[in-house]
Amino acid sequence: MHFVYETREMSEIFVGIDLGGTNIKIGCFDSQLNLICKTAVATEANVGPEVIIDRIGQTTEKLLADNDLSGESIAAIGIGAPGPSKLDEGIIIASPNMPSFKNVPLRKMVSDKFGKPAVLENDANAACWGEYVLGAGKDVEDMVFFTLGTGIGGGVIINGRLVHGFADNAAELGHIIIYPEGRRCGCGQRGCVEAYASADSTAKRAAEAVKAGAQSSLEKVLDEKGQISCQDVYEHLAAGDKLAKKITDETAKALAIVCVNVLHTTEPKRIVFAGGMIAAGDALLGRIRYYFDQQIWSLKKEAVEIAFATLGEDAGIIGAAALAKKARDEGKFN
Amino acid sequence: MHFVYETREMSEIFVGIDLGGTNIKIGCFDSQLNLICKTAVATEANVGPEVIIDRIGQTTEKLLADNDLSGESIAAIGIGAPGPSKLDEGIIIASPNMPSFKNVPLRKMVSDKFGKPAVLENDANAACWGEYVLGAGKDVEDMVFFTLGTGIGGGVIINGRLVHGFADNAAELGHIIIYPEGRRCGCGQRGCVEAYASADSTAKRAAEAVKAGAQSSLEKVLDEKGQISCQDVYEHLAAGDKLAKKITDETAKALAIVCVNVLHTTEPKRIVFAGGMIAAGDALLGRIRYYFDQQIWSLKKEAVEIAFATLGEDAGIIGAAALAKKARDEGKFN
Repeated sequence: MHFVYETREMSEIFVGIDLGGTNIKIGCFDSQLNLICKTAVATEANVGPEVIIDRIGQTTEKLLADNDLSGESIAAIGIGAPGPSKLDEGIIIASPNMPSFKNVPLRKMVSDKFGKPAVLENDANAACWGEYVLGAGKDVEDMVFFTLGTGIGGGVIINGRLVHGFADNAAELGHIIIYPEGRRCGCGQRGCVEAYASADSTAKRAAEAVKAGAQSSLEKVLDEKGQISCQDVYEHLAAGDKLAKKITDETAKALAIVCVNVLHTTEPKRIVFAGGMIAAGDALLGRIRYYFDQQIWSLKKEAVEIAFATLGEDAGIIGAAALAKKARDEGKFN
Repeated sequence: MHFVYETREMSEIFVGIDLGGTNIKIGCFDSQLNLICKTAVATEANVGPEVIIDRIGQTTEKLLADNDLSGESIAAIGIGAPGPSKLDEGIIIASPNMPSFKNVPLRKMVSDKFGKPAVLENDANAACWGEYVLGAGKDVEDMVFFTLGTGIGGGVIINGRLVHGFADNAAELGHIIIYPEGRRCGCGQRGCVEAYASADSTAKRAAEAVKAGAQSSLEKVLDEKGQISCQDVYEHLAAGDKLAKKITDETAKALAIVCVNVLHTTEPKRIVFAGGMIAAGDALLGRIRYYFDQQIWSLKKEAVEIAFATLGEDAGIIGAAALAKKARDEGKFN
C-alpha cells in the first residue's frame, strides 16, 4: 500500500477505525484529536478478514488522498472491534456478527498493512473511551457507559482507565440480571437488562403488548409495517400514546435498576447512555432519573450523574484514535 | 504514650487494626506480614473517638510489651474501619454502628497517638485486601469479595488495586438489587442481595417460613429460643431438614445472581465469600456454584472461580497491616 499524497503540512495523524458487522467507520484526527476527515464503507463481513483489511487500507488511502493528507503522517492506528478478543495480543477470538473472524490477529494485520503501530480495543470500550475523552465523560475520572442498540454494550472506566477484566470480557453490562426468571436473552440468561431495555427489546415489548390486545396508536404501525421499531415507540410516546409511555417507563426502570447496581459496584461519578434510543431525549432520560431516585437507598443523596452521550456515531472512531494516541504517548510502541 | 520495651530484636513491625462496632482487633506483623501477635478489646463505641483511640494505644502497648516488642519498631499502622469515609483524608464521615464517629480524623489521631504514619481503609476493603494478599485471592489480580454477616459488605480489586469509587463508596455489593420490588432492605431499597443472603436475612427468612406454617425441625428452635440463627439453619440442613435446604438454596441462588452480575461488570478471576456463614461449607458453596451454572449465559464457559475465604477473622488485621506496608513501600509516607 502506497501513500503518495503529501501536499498538506500535517505533523501527525491518528487513525480511528470502528469495525462493525455492517459498516466500517474510519476517521483521521490531529494530535489534539480534532477530526480532520472521516468516511464509512460496508463491512460485508462474509468476505473474510484479509479482504476486510484490504478494504480498510484502500478506504483509508482514498480518505487521506481526498483530504490532501499523507499516509506517512500516520503516527498510530486505533481499532475498535467486536469480540471476545485478547486485547494485549491484538487478536479477535470470535465475533457473532463477523463469523469469518476466528482467532484473527487483527492488530498485526492492520499494523502490517499501514506499516504503522496499532492498538485493538473492544468496540463498546472504544466508544466509551471516546465519550470519556471528548464527550459526556470528559470532566470525570470514573464513568460507566451503556450503548443501547440491538443489544446493550458497556464500558467501565475507573481512575481514568478502561476496565478489561481478567480475560478482556469486562463490562458486558447488558447481561447484568435485573429480573431473575424474566425474559429470555439472546445470551442464554434470563432477565438481562438487554432483554428489556435495548432498542430491539423495547420495540419487541411494544409489539408483544399490541398483539396481546393493548390499546395503542402503535396498532396501526404493526398492521401496516408488520413490526414496530423503537423509534415508533418514541414517536407515539411524543404523541401521547399510553402504551408507548408504559413501554418507555419499563425501559427506564430497567436502566435505573442497572444504574443502582453499577453505582454500588464501582461507584462511577457519571453513567452515560449512548445509541439511537437517546434521541428520545428527556422523555427517556427524565424517566431513568425518576426511577433511579425511586430505587436508590435512602442512606444518602447519591452524587452520581446520569447523562446521555454527546458524540453520536463518532464516539467509536474518536475513542479508537484517542487510544492509539494514548498508547503512543505512554511509549507502548517503543 | 511511651513504648519502653526493647528486648527483642525486630527490624520493623506493621500494626493492623480492625475497628468494629463491637470489638477492636489488633495484630502485629513482621515485614513478611507474618502474624507475630494479636489481641482484641471491646469497642464500647458510645465512649467517643478520643477514648477509643486511647484504648487502641493502651491495648497495642500492652500487646507489644507482652510479646517483648518495642513500639519504636512500628513502621506503619493500618486501620480498617466502617464508613462512609474520606479515605485519602483519613476521615470517618459517619458510622451506623459507632454513632459518636462524625467527621473523625481517625488516621491523624492514630498516627499522632503512636507517632507513626497510618493509613485508613474501609473495613470490608481491608478484609478483602487481606484475602487478596495472603488468603483466597493470593494468586489472582482481579477479585471480588463478599462478607456475609449481619449485612453484606464487599470489596473489588482490579489489576491488583482496591476500587474506591469517585467518593470512596464503591463495592457496596450487598445493595446490588437482584429482585426489584422484593424484600425491603435496611438501606431503604427493595430486593438487595443483602435482604436475602446475609446471615441475618437467611435466619429471618427461615423464621418467617416456620411462622407461616412450613414443616421443619426448626420449629422447635423457634419455640424454645424465640428466634432462629443462621447457624441453626445450617445445622438443620446438615441433619436433612427440607425447609433448611430450601432456605439455603434461596441464599445460594441470590449469591449466584450477584456473582453473574459482578462477573459481567469487572470480570474478576475469583469471587470470594467470607463471614461466619461459610462454615456451612460445601452445602452452601456447592449450591452457589450450581445456581451460578444455571444462571450464567450459554455463550462460553466462564473461567471465574467461586471460593470461600481462608483467613477467617484475621483477614481485617492482615489486610490493614498489608495496606500500611504497601503505603510505606510505595513511599506514601515520605
